[in-house]
Amino acid sequence: MKWLHFGFLLFTFEYSICQTPEVLQVRKYVTQREHVIIDEFMSFLSIPNVASDSVNIRRNAALIQEMMRKRGIENIQLLTGINDRFPPVVYGEVKTPGAKETIIYYAHYDGQPVNPDQWARGLDPFNPKLYSGSIPNGGKEISVSKSSRFDPETRIYARGSSDDKAGVIAVLNAYDAVIANGLKPTHNIKFFFEGEEEAGSPHLQEILEKYKALLQSDCWIICDGPVHQTGKKQIVFGVRGDAHLDLTVYGPKRPLHSGHYGNWAPNPAMMLAKLLASMKDEEGKVTIKGFYDDVKPLSDLEQKAIKDVPSVDQQMKKELGLKEAEFKGKSLGEAINLPSLNINGMQSGNVGKLASNQIPTSATVVLDLRLVVGNDWKKQQQKVIDHIRNQGYTVIDHEPTDAERLEHSKLVKVASDDFAYNAQRTSMDLPIAKKIIAAVQSTTSEQVVLQPTSGGSLPLYMIEKYLGSKSITVPIVNHDNNQHAENENIRLANLWSGIETMAAIMRMK
Amino acid sequence: MKWLHFGFLLFTFEYSICQTPEVLQVRKYVTQREHVIIDEFMSFLSIPNVASDSVNIRRNAALIQEMMRKRGIENIQLLTGINDRFPPVVYGEVKTPGAKETIIYYAHYDGQPVNPDQWARGLDPFNPKLYSGSIPNGGKEISVSKSSRFDPETRIYARGSSDDKAGVIAVLNAYDAVIANGLKPTHNIKFFFEGEEEAGSPHLQEILEKYKALLQSDCWIICDGPVHQTGKKQIVFGVRGDAHLDLTVYGPKRPLHSGHYGNWAPNPAMMLAKLLASMKDEEGKVTIKGFYDDVKPLSDLEQKAIKDVPSVDQQMKKELGLKEAEFKGKSLGEAINLPSLNINGMQSGNVGKLASNQIPTSATVVLDLRLVVGNDWKKQQQKVIDHIRNQGYTVIDHEPTDAERLEHSKLVKVASDDFAYNAQRTSMDLPIAKKIIAAVQSTTSEQVVLQPTSGGSLPLYMIEKYLGSKSITVPIVNHDNNQHAENENIRLANLWSGIETMAAIMRMK
Repeated sequence: MKWLHFGFLLFTFEYSICQTPEVLQVRKYVTQREHVIIDEFMSFLSIPNVASDSVNIRRNAALIQEMMRKRGIENIQLLTGINDRFPPVVYGEVKTPGAKETIIYYAHYDGQPVNPDQWARGLDPFNPKLYSGSIPNGGKEISVSKSSRFDPETRIYARGSSDDKAGVIAVLNAYDAVIANGLKPTHNIKFFFEGEEEAGSPHLQEILEKYKALLQSDCWIICDGPVHQTGKKQIVFGVRGDAHLDLTVYGPKRPLHSGHYGNWAPNPAMMLAKLLASMKDEEGKVTIKGFYDDVKPLSDLEQKAIKDVPSVDQQMKKELGLKEAEFKGKSLGEAINLPSLNINGMQSGNVGKLASNQIPTSATVVLDLRLVVGNDWKKQQQKVIDHIRNQGYTVIDHEPTDAERLEHSKLVKVASDDFAYNAQRTSMDLPIAKKIIAAVQSTTSEQVVLQPTSGGSLPLYMIEKYLGSKSITVPIVNHDNNQHAENENIRLANLWSGIETMAAIMRMK
Repeated sequence: MKWLHFGFLLFTFEYSICQTPEVLQVRKYVTQREHVIIDEFMSFLSIPNVASDSVNIRRNAALIQEMMRKRGIENIQLLTGINDRFPPVVYGEVKTPGAKETIIYYAHYDGQPVNPDQWARGLDPFNPKLYSGSIPNGGKEISVSKSSRFDPETRIYARGSSDDKAGVIAVLNAYDAVIANGLKPTHNIKFFFEGEEEAGSPHLQEILEKYKALLQSDCWIICDGPVHQTGKKQIVFGVRGDAHLDLTVYGPKRPLHSGHYGNWAPNPAMMLAKLLASMKDEEGKVTIKGFYDDVKPLSDLEQKAIKDVPSVDQQMKKELGLKEAEFKGKSLGEAINLPSLNINGMQSGNVGKLASNQIPTSATVVLDLRLVVGNDWKKQQQKVIDHIRNQGYTVIDHEPTDAERLEHSKLVKVASDDFAYNAQRTSMDLPIAKKIIAAVQSTTSEQVVLQPTSGGSLPLYMIEKYLGSKSITVPIVNHDNNQHAENENIRLANLWSGIETMAAIMRMK
C-alpha cells in the first residue's frame, strides 16, 4: 500500500490516475452503462419494500431473481425459514473454475417503514426521483436525457435508495463490469439478499441453520451502510451487539390530584429520574458496577486503526449543535468501542397541551445497551438489573399485584426484548481481511478508513456462530443519506464508486 | 351540635333519623326526582367541556342558562372579561325578600383536557355511562329503567362528572328542592358558574373587577372537590396556591442513531433525570434552597383542626397500593400544609411500540408547585430557577439558537404558566363560617371534618383581593373520582348527599 500513500501525497488533485488499470476499466464500463443501471435501479425502487408488506416484498424478490437470471447467475432460489410466508432471501451463485475461496455478497432489499407525510413536498417513498443535489443544499428535481451523462452529485430520492437496495444494485453491476471486461471473479461468488433486515432479521438464524451446507464460504461481504463522514471509503470489521430493557416504576394505583396528594404520594417520574440519574456520573461514564468489564481488549492493530480514523468530532458537534460530548475525554471513535447505555425514550403522565395536575401512576423508560466484543448481552442486562436492585428496587416481570405494592416501596417491572444479540468483530490481520483492504484501497487515492467496529448493530454474530464464517462490512453510500428516516437518498457518485469497490473485491488477489 | 354527637353515638346504624326534618324533606324530593336529575346531568356531560374548545364550551354555557331559565332564576347572563371570546361565567340570581345576606354559589363547568386513549375500554370522556360501581372494584356498565331507583353505589363515568359539573347540578337541584318544599333560601343567592377554571381561570380577575358591583356578597360557597377520604363531609377554609414550570433540556439538533452516537452525543432524557433527581432527597424533602421558607404559621384553632381531621394515611396507602409516603415522617395533613414540588408529566422520545433506537433531541417535564399562605408564587418559581442555574444550566425562554447550543453544554428552556396564583385561607371562627359549619353538620350524623386548607388549588385569593369577600369550600364528590385524569366518575350517593348539603346551606340560619 506504500505507493498509494505516495500517490495520495503527490496527486491529491489528480485522483483518478492512482487507480489500477482494472479499476479504470470498470469505471469506463460503468460510465457507458449509467442509464441502463439507473433504469434498473429506478424500477427496483418503485416496488414498496417494507418487510411487513408481504405482497410487495415478494415482487421485489421476483425482480431480483429476474435481474440475476439476465446475468446468467446460477442456482437462483428463494431461501426461507421454517415458515415460507416471511420475506425470503434471494440467493444465487457463480462458480469460478479453479477458485479455492468462496465469498458471500450480502445486501438487503427491504427498507424501514415509511410515513409519506414526513417526506418533502413532491417526494414519494416509492416513486423514485432524480434531484440535482441534496434537498437541504438546494437540490431540485431534474430529468436527464439518455444522450447525456449524469452529474455525479445527482441524488435519487426513494426508500431503499441507500439502505439497502443500493447494495443489491452495486453487487450485481460490479459482477457485470467484471465479466464485461473479459475477466472472472477470483473466487466463487454467492449472492445473499435478505428481505427482513429492517424488521430485525427475525428468521435469519433459521435460514442460516437450514441452509448451512449451501452457505459455506470463507467470508461474507456486507454491503450496507454509509462511507465515512469525511466521504472516504471505509471498511468495518465489526458491529456492536444490542439489547434493550424497558423499565416501569410505579406510583399510586390510580392517577392522583397533584394538589391533594403531591409530595405525599410517591411520584413515579421522580423515582425514575433518581434511578436513571444513578446510572451515569457527571462525566458521562456509566456507574453500574462492572459495566465496562468483560470487554475484549483491542489489538494493537485495532488501536492503531482507531487512531488513524479521521476525527469527525468537531464536524459532528457543529452539525448537531453540541458544545461537548456526553462521555468526557472520549472521542466518538473511542466511545463506540465501549459498551453504552442510552435512553431511547422516557414517559410519565403527559406534557404540553395534554399535561394535567396529576401524579402519574407509572413512569417508563426504554434503555438501549450497545455491546462490544466480550460482552454477553444477558450478563450486561443483568448488571443493570443488579444495579437497580442495589438502589432498593424489587424487580418484577409483571404489573404489580396489590400485595406486592404494599410490601415493597420501590417496584420496577423489567422487560427485555427477545432479539438481543452480541457484538461481532473480525480481525483485521486475517489474510482475507488484508486482501479485502488491498482491494478496496486499489480503487481510491485516499487512505481507506479502517474501523474495528461500527457504532451500530447487525446480528453478524450469527454468521460466525451458525456457519463459522467471518464477515466484513464494506459500505458504499453517502453518510447524509437519511437512512431510516424521511427523504432517504443516494448520491450517484457513491453508487458508481460502490460498484468499483465491489468489482475490486470480486477481483481481489 | 351536641345532640348530633349524641345521636351519632346512639344511632350509628340508624343514620337517617339524626337529620333535621328539612333535610329529610329534601332527601325525599331528591329520591322522587332521581331520573330527572340524572337525565339532565347526562345531557350536560355529553357536551365536551375543555376550556380551549370554544364552540363546545359555549354550548355548555347555553345549556346552563336554559337550566336556570327553567328554574325561574333571574338576571341570567354571561359574564366575560375584556375579550368576550373566552369561556364565559354563567351568572344568575334569586332575591329573597327581607334577606340581609347574600351568598354566591360557585362551581365550574369546564374540565381538564382529555386523552381518550387513556380511558378504560368502552369509556368515552364525553359519552357518559352508568356503571354498577367503580371499575377498579368490578363495576360494569348498566342501564336503569325509569321505573326503578338507582343503587346509590352507581357511578357515572365522564369528564366533568365530579370536577365540576357535579357542582352545577348539585347547586341547581338544591335550589329546586328548597323551593319544591315550599321553603325559601334564607339569603339572596347568586350563581356563578365559571368556564375556564381548569385552564387556570385566566380571565377571572378581569371578570371580578368588571362585575364588582354585581358580585357583592357576604361569602362565596365553592362547591368543588371531594369529601373527606373517610367518606365524611368536610368544609375547607383555604386552598393552596399553584404555579407551574415547563422545563425542556436539549440534546442533538436532530434525532441520532443510538448505536452510532450513543454515549457520545448528550442524551437529554438523562440530563433531565439528573436535574430532577437533584430537586428532592431520598426522604422526599425538596432540596431547593429556601423552598420551605416564607410559610405563614397556622393559628391554634387551625392546628387543632388538623389534629382532629381523621387520619386517612393508612387507608389511602392501602387504597393506592403504597407501602410508604414520599415525604418521610409527614402525614398527609401535614404535607398539604407545606409547599410542594411535583412532576405532572415527563417525556423524551418514545416508549412502547413507538420506541426506536434513537437519542432524542429534547426532554420535557411539567413541574407543579403548590403554595401555602405566605408563599409568593413568583418567588417560589424563582427558587426553582435559581436551583437549575446552580446545576450548571443556562436558562433561556426560547428554542436555542445554533450559537447558544455551541456556547452552552447545558441549556434549559423554562416556561411559566401565566396564571399562577397564591394560596388563600379564611378564618374558621368568623360568624358566617360558624353558620355554614352548622348547616352542613345538620345533614349528617357524622362529625363534619374541618380543614384549614385543601391540598388542591383555586384562585380564591382573587375573591378576597378584588371583591373583599370571604370564600369557604364545601366539596361533595367521592374522593376516588379520578378527577383530572382518565376514567373520571361520580358516585350517585355523593351527588344526592351533595344536593342535601347545598340545600342546607341555602337554608342556614
